[in-house]
Amino acid sequence: MIALTNTTLIAIGGGLDLQKPSRVIKEFLLHCGGSQACIVIIPTASRHKDTGERYQALFQSLGVERLPCLLEIRQRAEACNQDYVPAIEAATGIFLTGGNQVRLTAILGGTPVEAALHRAYQQGAVIAGTSAGAAALSAIMLAFGKDGATPKQSMAQFSPGLGFTDRMIIDQHFRQRDRLGRLLFAVANHPGILGIGIDEETAAILEGDILTVIGQNAVTIIDGAHLRGTDIADIKHTYPIALSDARVHVLTQGCTFNLKNRRASIPEKGGNIE
Amino acid sequence: MIALTNTTLIAIGGGLDLQKPSRVIKEFLLHCGGSQACIVIIPTASRHKDTGERYQALFQSLGVERLPCLLEIRQRAEACNQDYVPAIEAATGIFLTGGNQVRLTAILGGTPVEAALHRAYQQGAVIAGTSAGAAALSAIMLAFGKDGATPKQSMAQFSPGLGFTDRMIIDQHFRQRDRLGRLLFAVANHPGILGIGIDEETAAILEGDILTVIGQNAVTIIDGAHLRGTDIADIKHTYPIALSDARVHVLTQGCTFNLKNRRASIPEKGGNIE
Repeated sequence: MIALTNTTLIAIGGGLDLQKPSRVIKEFLLHCGGSQACIVIIPTASRHKDTGERYQALFQSLGVERLPCLLEIRQRAEACNQDYVPAIEAATGIFLTGGNQVRLTAILGGTPVEAALHRAYQQGAVIAGTSAGAAALSAIMLAFGKDGATPKQSMAQFSPGLGFTDRMIIDQHFRQRDRLGRLLFAVANHPGILGIGIDEETAAILEGDILTVIGQNAVTIIDGAHLRGTDIADIKHTYPIALSDARVHVLTQGCTFNLKNRRASIPEKGGNIE
Repeated sequence: MIALTNTTLIAIGGGLDLQKPSRVIKEFLLHCGGSQACIVIIPTASRHKDTGERYQALFQSLGVERLPCLLEIRQRAEACNQDYVPAIEAATGIFLTGGNQVRLTAILGGTPVEAALHRAYQQGAVIAGTSAGAAALSAIMLAFGKDGATPKQSMAQFSPGLGFTDRMIIDQHFRQRDRLGRLLFAVANHPGILGIGIDEETAAILEGDILTVIGQNAVTIIDGAHLRGTDIADIKHTYPIALSDARVHVLTQGCTFNLKNRRASIPEKGGNIE
């Protein structure tokens, strides 16, 4: 296994073109060893039978020498199989595909596979997820939400995620599916947790306290720590909720955000899109 | 401050009679120093103006010598006030009243008060909550749910709690409000997280890995780690969800549950109700 000293989480906003590999996929590979990467693909979120194979072909087309290991886990009984554990523990990068995030947690939650993923992460393996795979990375996960820019009561469901970070809630297909409202709703519920909205073909890379943005579009960060007020506890049904003084950062390629002091850093010459 | 070597969390299922102090209140006092306890009361969840004062009187009637410190935090601006921090840091016991759990997280989340509570907890202060105050203790919190024994899709809202434990989801007024369905729904979403349903006048005391039950009624524990299957990811709207092989423990006074090996221990002669 390639020695990595820090934990690395890569949340990708979905919309990946598997025919024409995007910068975010290349960046994932760079982080887990380039051509020497030892990759595990988990397509559990997806209902399409060929999802895993398509990523396997993609990573091979980008020069990964070792055949990425495909864990076709479709049921809890399979996630309880200890046979998958050695592959996960040997991985330098683990990739969770898109699909339905509740499938990921309902199938993997509390199983030996989930435990092995956490051990691998602590030991330096890069954990990446796209779309549903990105949503499931956080301890609290958004699912089954409604679109729209106005936050409304109960407009999204939170549920327990895989828990690689408890400092943020990750939303994806962010601008493309108009999800500002549900991220504001999430932050109003607990203003201490950062809301991270990731656009398609874009990724947030979390290394220690530093989140770095890469890709074509933007990552929107909602920081509620300085929220002055919200009426969320009193609003009934699905009426709009009010909140004031949420801080919003829209960050593009090359921008960083420090989770400790909650400061964004924007490169002087703008993001360095190639 | 009285030296305590472990963290202690006391989740109370609500329904406390403040005129006739119940065993759970006395047990809270015992854990935080008896007559020498240095108590902080946080009535933020409640909309009643006298909630905090009623608990203050209750603790005094039970022989607590020092006047319990009442933090009347009703708005975020107050929770951002550093003046409250020293009282929290000096406390041997902190009591969160009932009310609305979303009010607790929306007002305290991400503030200096929340940070001070976590520091106090790590330093040995007992953190106790009843009803909404109990629900908010966990990292993932149940709110706005529907009653009934059958788990149904989206029948409860999860939202981010105060996060004193990330190993369980706590529900309260459990048997009295018929909440088995929503706890099963919660566990099906992520079977790795324990569902803890606490009846009224009953408490779960978490010290390290050991949960101990005290009080008049029962604590129901749903362990999903051995769940064989659930269709929760595919069920639409509010239709019932299926799940198989959830393990259920119903524990009464004196019973314990080990969170590490997930084994319950029932005293030979039954719970020692006085």
